[in-house]
Amino acid sequence: MRLRPALIAVEGIDGSGKSGVVRHLAAHLRSLGADVLATREPGGTPEGESLRALVLAGKDETWEPASELLLMTAARVQHVRRVIEPALARGQIVVTDRFVGSTLAYQGKGRGLSTGFILDLHRQAVGDLWPDLTLILDLDVATGLGRSRHRLSTDAIDEGRFEGLDLGFHQSIRSAFRDQALEAPARHALIDASGTPEEVQAAALAAVLGRLSA
Amino acid sequence: MRLRPALIAVEGIDGSGKSGVVRHLAAHLRSLGADVLATREPGGTPEGESLRALVLAGKDETWEPASELLLMTAARVQHVRRVIEPALARGQIVVTDRFVGSTLAYQGKGRGLSTGFILDLHRQAVGDLWPDLTLILDLDVATGLGRSRHRLSTDAIDEGRFEGLDLGFHQSIRSAFRDQALEAPARHALIDASGTPEEVQAAALAAVLGRLSA
Repeated sequence: MRLRPALIAVEGIDGSGKSGVVRHLAAHLRSLGADVLATREPGGTPEGESLRALVLAGKDETWEPASELLLMTAARVQHVRRVIEPALARGQIVVTDRFVGSTLAYQGKGRGLSTGFILDLHRQAVGDLWPDLTLILDLDVATGLGRSRHRLSTDAIDEGRFEGLDLGFHQSIRSAFRDQALEAPARHALIDASGTPEEVQAAALAAVLGRLSA
Repeated sequence: MRLRPALIAVEGIDGSGKSGVVRHLAAHLRSLGADVLATREPGGTPEGESLRALVLAGKDETWEPASELLLMTAARVQHVRRVIEPALARGQIVVTDRFVGSTLAYQGKGRGLSTGFILDLHRQAVGDLWPDLTLILDLDVATGLGRSRHRLSTDAIDEGRFEGLDLGFHQSIRSAFRDQALEAPARHALIDASGTPEEVQAAALAAVLGRLSA
């Protein structure tokens, strides 16, 4: 089985199992002989990690919505130019934990910035690079927050920036992700993320193999 | 003499005397009874100062040109929303050391980003706020760099980020600033910055009084 170079984004609310899906996908695609790069946003480069820390360490009101968008996009510019584009050019499959779909959901629907502004900015700053396939891990918000809070308390990760916002915010994020999948079904797969990690990871892998080897 | 609320930007290459002009303008306008806020970019807010440090501490190749533009613009969003707009609303005269003219010069002419992209981004992220008057302190590049290096060595300021670039870069910045003044003379004043600090500051003050009290 020969898989072509591709950019796969894994999106979803906190607690939907994105990082487990990225790890499982990368391992399974490698076992099929593919050369895979697993990465994440915001971050993925030293500069992006600095910006990630700056945004996630802030309180809800620290950054203006437009500033938050610009910092997230600056991290993406670094990530795309220095990590993702070179990897694709080498023939790798890139699997990223979050990409522009998260920006459309969090800074767009969540913070009230227009989709047009976000997409313009992507085209002008990042360039005309879009995921070949975006997996949307879809999950009830209360379940996701429960999983996410459990992880925060056990792993002592002090990154509760978006987790701290209210239920209505997270519901709007979930619906934004679902809308992305419904509006562009050819480039998205909506994955039921309510099952066990093994079930979700198997569904994600099946979606990738079905779409990218077709 | 009654001066209306206004945004005055002071622009120019390193060593052109911007900060002295800002201090002198603020003091003199205050002595005329005006309520003045003196500020600077990048910075002017705690978040902007973090971004200033992040950009200025980097090496020349740390940030992609588009990323540098986004970080500078994010700092401007914070500055405008939280400092400049509230000050103008209170009736103050705001004098800022650098504003969008520096972005057009450094990230536009210097880094090769298009003027259209920079102005679109300003409109969409910052809003439709432009200086009532921009003073362009115009100076021979070698003289400016000499002054700037003297200041860096005596004040031990470790912010030689743009000062470290070559003469051709700084010449293109000077010419970009001159072009801004020539293209929109009603909103710019080109000030000869080759004289003593007292001469330059007096010329800057005369330009402000001539334009804003008219």
